[in-house]
Amino acid sequence: MDAYKAIVTKRDTRSFTDEGVAEDVLQRLLQAGRMAGSAKNLQPCRFVVVDDTDTATKVAGCGQFSAWIPTAPLNIAVVIPADGREFDAGRAAQNIMVAANAEGLASCPVTMHDNDCVLDVLGIPAGHRVSIVIAIGHPGEGPRSRGPAGARLSLDDYVHRSRW
Amino acid sequence: MDAYKAIVTKRDTRSFTDEGVAEDVLQRLLQAGRMAGSAKNLQPCRFVVVDDTDTATKVAGCGQFSAWIPTAPLNIAVVIPADGREFDAGRAAQNIMVAANAEGLASCPVTMHDNDCVLDVLGIPAGHRVSIVIAIGHPGEGPRSRGPAGARLSLDDYVHRSRW
Repeated sequence: MDAYKAIVTKRDTRSFTDEGVAEDVLQRLLQAGRMAGSAKNLQPCRFVVVDDTDTATKVAGCGQFSAWIPTAPLNIAVVIPADGREFDAGRAAQNIMVAANAEGLASCPVTMHDNDCVLDVLGIPAGHRVSIVIAIGHPGEGPRSRGPAGARLSLDDYVHRSRW
Repeated sequence: MDAYKAIVTKRDTRSFTDEGVAEDVLQRLLQAGRMAGSAKNLQPCRFVVVDDTDTATKVAGCGQFSAWIPTAPLNIAVVIPADGREFDAGRAAQNIMVAANAEGLASCPVTMHDNDCVLDVLGIPAGHRVSIVIAIGHPGEGPRSRGPAGARLSLDDYVHRSRW
């Protein structure tokens, strides 16, 4: 898929079919996350791949709005040091999600409100934070996650020229 | 450009020619930023476009490692509420930078260490934070920003399966 199309058509979507994500596709998603730049090239992000329902169900218990996580055949936890930059995690996560969109996959980021819980479930050492969990799968028939599909303010509301 | 290629070939690069960025290209970059998803669809990001050297020089004075900013023909400040999520700013910034790469443009994110300074220079209301400034332009002949081009840990260093 064309890069610009993959970027602007990506919607956070949390409705999936049961079909799994092929291993070669997963490898491209991980590579997309790996290649995201980071401040001082510190490469702070690590990825924990969750593709079994038991683990996904436990992860789901660590967030306030995450009960649906096990409906995704694939989840990727993006982990950074506790003092790492969320900005860099956002860069890596967006790379993964745009690459997923280019593969015809739906995805949605999910906040883990109880970090200690998810560290424990995934065996992640103390001193880390799960910045986000990305749920990924083939798009289902359900509604998109939030309001009208892709509702956005106008570009004029986003942009200032030279000064605010 | 193919989406996956645009994602994995993007390098943070801070060497630019003098050639400006065409307005239609700029509009696509801004649209890419606008279409990034955000937590609860809060759409926290705003973009201040800086394409004059005088303003860029003033912005450069607000960071510790940003003296080179005016060498970029285009800079986009990504602004969020002071209590906004840096993760969402990272998503928007990455969209802009991957879209730029697909247009054949180089880009590099720059931290503004003195937020009050850059709010003042760009006339941004109090209660906001400039999460990042993205310098953008046609790639020059200079070296890339950090170490060997694209140096990354191996994918194995990034990825854990099911458990850390």
